[in-house]
Amino acid sequence: MSSVFAERMARLRAAMKQTGTGLVAIGPGSHMQWLAGFYPHPDERPCLLLVGPEKAGFLMPALNAEAARLHSDLPMFEWADATGPDAALSAAIDAIFPQRTGRIVIDETMRADFAFLLADALPVLPRAFTQDTLGLLRSIKDEDEYRRLKACALLNDAAMKAARAALKPGMTENAVAEVVRGHFSQNGGQPLFWIVGASENGAHPHHATGDRVLKTGDAVVLDIGGRLDGYPSDMTRMAIIGEEPEGYREVHAIVERAVQAALAAAKPGAKASDVDRAARDVIADAGYGDYFVHRTGHGLGIDAHEPPYITATSDVVLEEGMVFSIEPGIYLPGRFGIRLEDIVILRADGPEIFSELPRDAYVA
Amino acid sequence: MSSVFAERMARLRAAMKQTGTGLVAIGPGSHMQWLAGFYPHPDERPCLLLVGPEKAGFLMPALNAEAARLHSDLPMFEWADATGPDAALSAAIDAIFPQRTGRIVIDETMRADFAFLLADALPVLPRAFTQDTLGLLRSIKDEDEYRRLKACALLNDAAMKAARAALKPGMTENAVAEVVRGHFSQNGGQPLFWIVGASENGAHPHHATGDRVLKTGDAVVLDIGGRLDGYPSDMTRMAIIGEEPEGYREVHAIVERAVQAALAAAKPGAKASDVDRAARDVIADAGYGDYFVHRTGHGLGIDAHEPPYITATSDVVLEEGMVFSIEPGIYLPGRFGIRLEDIVILRADGPEIFSELPRDAYVA
Repeated sequence: MSSVFAERMARLRAAMKQTGTGLVAIGPGSHMQWLAGFYPHPDERPCLLLVGPEKAGFLMPALNAEAARLHSDLPMFEWADATGPDAALSAAIDAIFPQRTGRIVIDETMRADFAFLLADALPVLPRAFTQDTLGLLRSIKDEDEYRRLKACALLNDAAMKAARAALKPGMTENAVAEVVRGHFSQNGGQPLFWIVGASENGAHPHHATGDRVLKTGDAVVLDIGGRLDGYPSDMTRMAIIGEEPEGYREVHAIVERAVQAALAAAKPGAKASDVDRAARDVIADAGYGDYFVHRTGHGLGIDAHEPPYITATSDVVLEEGMVFSIEPGIYLPGRFGIRLEDIVILRADGPEIFSELPRDAYVA
Repeated sequence: MSSVFAERMARLRAAMKQTGTGLVAIGPGSHMQWLAGFYPHPDERPCLLLVGPEKAGFLMPALNAEAARLHSDLPMFEWADATGPDAALSAAIDAIFPQRTGRIVIDETMRADFAFLLADALPVLPRAFTQDTLGLLRSIKDEDEYRRLKACALLNDAAMKAARAALKPGMTENAVAEVVRGHFSQNGGQPLFWIVGASENGAHPHHATGDRVLKTGDAVVLDIGGRLDGYPSDMTRMAIIGEEPEGYREVHAIVERAVQAALAAAKPGAKASDVDRAARDVIADAGYGDYFVHRTGHGLGIDAHEPPYITATSDVVLEEGMVFSIEPGIYLPGRFGIRLEDIVILRADGPEIFSELPRDAYVA
């Protein structure tokens, strides 16, 4: 096990001790990628990384054991298609979690059948998801992760510039998205998502980019992200086609003030809900509270959405090294939507923004 | 709701009645695609399609409701980031499953946190996955699904021929895979997977295709699949580079006899385990039982792996219209692996094979 993964395992065990957790169970996905540096081919065959106070090991479909051994020297409790996973799971629990006391923590993203297989094998224990163990650890980024996120953010800036440069009346939303995807693909990255929402379409925060033709007077939401070297980007900027729609400038200014209020509230020791409230109060005070229909942000790491979530009800205390989005918006049905989104890493004195592009509306 | 989805909903309700199921809960994924013709953007926000005996509706993140309404006129129980899903889930259960009696059936592929949200809201009811309701219905294909699977199988045949035509000593496994991917992409499909396993690599059933260079005397496993018009393909054939390795011909003939035995055993009314046993007995009788390390097959539909699973322990009774793979293999560590895989649809008188390519080894 390389030093970064040994160190993460040690930090997880410290968190387990603090939280009274006897077992952490992880499915093939991002949590396993972070903790072990890989995950086996995910399919319907139950596969778990089980971490106890002193030992750890994999419940592993026999078919995938050979490939997994190239990545990990942890014990593999193998099971074959012919017999099913029950006996191997029992053996794994006996070896890794013989005491069978303390809380069990389950990867919230694993398949329901994997989770119930485990929950039914350990039915009387208190159960939680990873928010105060692995999820919390993942939310705080190390320097290597920072460098990857920064590199991807700069590629994202370049993709945004390419999309802006292409904008003109008569172009479809899909054609703009194609420029974004092409820029990521041609520069070593993979495009992840591309919301291009012209005027009334931008008023749906998760608009499905389509064949709406851009025309003079449109305000266009551009919310794009890609992946580079295992880490994603996510950023939203606004563009104006020729001239802005009526009332645009005032609303953009309110959203910008909301971003700045959230940036000012984001300090180590603040709660996630404090940051959400800072943005929400600006928008509500301006009379648009009913039109800010989503949370202020989400964490970003191996997953494009991960803890910490910046919501009205989150008591998560922000810590140095956390990475998350600040993305308030105002959505006016039938007219336009305005969202301004930056990803930040929390430093001792406040947030550092990854993107180097200003949040002003771009006029094409 | 278009007629195909109305008809599927009616069939699901009939299966619910037969099995004493009061509620079926489906996450954003293939089950929802089959039942409703779409699924919303899947993320960490709980989203469920709940089907009761008479009513149905969605637990829906407010952010995605507008887009979902373009696809469905079922009621949406919306929840906002600021409040969380609990109240909306209670309202949905009150409307759709007020009797709160009978078994609940959970989509086995949904996220663990979605599943426990529901299980904790209905804690005392018996719980099952979809194997005897939605999963069973999906395993039996209609004529439209047959046509899509057939079209994708023929594209897969063409991709296999392209890969074979490219084979030569000095080429890497990755370069062969690139030919497969390119063929799907250039002909309207998307490549899904590409196992290219030369000799000793082919002895790992799930070998990760790499930079191994093909050389004269290699036996190469080619297990490829793509997607066309929403439906996948999956097929395995063998290729020989110049001349076959020692002992190859005998082992290939045993695997071919195992395929034929499984094809002969696959009749409506037989159990899945009968088909597995037919293939397994041939291989065991030839002395290679320890080297056939996986099940004989898996279903194929919207998902490349779905019910019915053709395993030693499955009591699933095969029915006309079921689609599944027959793919026995013999894996000789350090030497080579041989797998021969065809997808079949079960007709009244036995299986019809989708592929039109013979299972003989191709000599390059």
